[in-house]
Amino acid sequence: MWIIGTGLLLVHDVNEPLKEGYMPRVGPNVHFCQVSFLIVPGVPAIKPGDDLAGIVLKTFPDFQDGDVLVIAQKIVSKAEGRLVRLSDITPSEAAVALAANTGRDPRYCQLVLDESTRIVEVKGKVIVVEHKTGTICTSAGIDKSNLEDADTLLLLPINSDKSAEGIRVLIESKTGKRIAVIVNDSGGSPYRQGAIGEAIGFSGIKALYESKTKDLFGNPCAPSVNVVDQLSATASLLMGEAGEGTPVIVIRGVSFQRDENAKLRDILISA
Amino acid sequence: MWIIGTGLLLVHDVNEPLKEGYMPRVGPNVHFCQVSFLIVPGVPAIKPGDDLAGIVLKTFPDFQDGDVLVIAQKIVSKAEGRLVRLSDITPSEAAVALAANTGRDPRYCQLVLDESTRIVEVKGKVIVVEHKTGTICTSAGIDKSNLEDADTLLLLPINSDKSAEGIRVLIESKTGKRIAVIVNDSGGSPYRQGAIGEAIGFSGIKALYESKTKDLFGNPCAPSVNVVDQLSATASLLMGEAGEGTPVIVIRGVSFQRDENAKLRDILISA
Repeated sequence: MWIIGTGLLLVHDVNEPLKEGYMPRVGPNVHFCQVSFLIVPGVPAIKPGDDLAGIVLKTFPDFQDGDVLVIAQKIVSKAEGRLVRLSDITPSEAAVALAANTGRDPRYCQLVLDESTRIVEVKGKVIVVEHKTGTICTSAGIDKSNLEDADTLLLLPINSDKSAEGIRVLIESKTGKRIAVIVNDSGGSPYRQGAIGEAIGFSGIKALYESKTKDLFGNPCAPSVNVVDQLSATASLLMGEAGEGTPVIVIRGVSFQRDENAKLRDILISA
Repeated sequence: MWIIGTGLLLVHDVNEPLKEGYMPRVGPNVHFCQVSFLIVPGVPAIKPGDDLAGIVLKTFPDFQDGDVLVIAQKIVSKAEGRLVRLSDITPSEAAVALAANTGRDPRYCQLVLDESTRIVEVKGKVIVVEHKTGTICTSAGIDKSNLEDADTLLLLPINSDKSAEGIRVLIESKTGKRIAVIVNDSGGSPYRQGAIGEAIGFSGIKALYESKTKDLFGNPCAPSVNVVDQLSATASLLMGEAGEGTPVIVIRGVSFQRDENAKLRDILISA
């Protein structure tokens, strides 16, 4: 008997023995496809200059073809040395004005301006900007948590697509497996409360899935589906937002299209 | 040996035999926590008046404590008979004006207006509204796909929180297991392309996770985390958008806070 999941799903012959990473059987008569989020423990604290791909591989040596590796922006930024000291910043007039509007440190506002191409909206303390990479985010994605002291801030990677590509190519060359890599960060919706993880860079995975199929009754229905953000969201939830220290998730069992030229701009709506 | 995931993660003793639904071991030295998305096959086509909880239970009889059942809005709406015929609608002047602006059928526009409390934005064909339940969505969530004919449209459930609660209470009473239920739908971000699943109603699960912890270095960091949308996103991806016919996902292994009074308004930002 075959359970066939079309489109994004997997196919599993339930008469086959269970493979690691799949568990298509929960009860005597129930068979299903499974997608697993593997929360990788034991990732050490990352320092500037660290070989992130090597560290991930050491912590999780068992990649399989089709795995999606989701890495928290924080450790990518740290490995890439994107740390800055607030005390090194001299604020401009524009930063001082933004600070007066928001009640924030003028030096912090300077960093936000330096990392952005435009301000989208200011609401109280919240500064929504377009980051240089094109992603819309609060405070240009500048991070204060999980850092050694209050004077240290962490910027987004300069190009998270390139970061993801570097990690993907290295892991693929060492393991011989074909994987995808997503760098995720906390984002959110202007209409909804609470952080929602989203992709800020990726490699090896087609970001938008364009359905060419018709619906169950043959009517055309072709909304595009944002694959990378939907995977990033649950991954973010499982990484936790505070000190949980699980910045690496491996998603196993999800079907996706390979795209070695995938880039963040594929999913952004330009202003 | 214990792998301890704080906050949202689970704890698993790797010396214990594997439990169904968990697979904490991938290689000789790698142990990890796992969250599984079980894609439930064989859910039949749903008709108005169907006992959705009963049908889910028949298809997936093996609920465990802590499972999160995610059900596509489409089948909830169908079971609740939220079908309307375009040919029964007489458009008002406002609907005719909206139709002229958007190039859409005036009767369709009437339905969108009937289901909404306000128009948020009109961009070309796209009508973003606040649905009566408070959720911001395009076309008031009115659905044309997976319906028998072009004259039939499907409205959102009147109150998806109540829908989720009814399903949860019934499944809990029949199985003796404590679960959560989320009704999800395709949403999206104004800044990003492609559909991203989001929750439009839920029961038994605290929607926002407020971290009370400090970060790895003891600095305060307490962004709230949108639990239900982050789970809905990957669930939507796995359900597929077209004719895949897998509108039921069970998420196993994710830790969440029980909340029997949870409601959609908990995560909405009011205008």
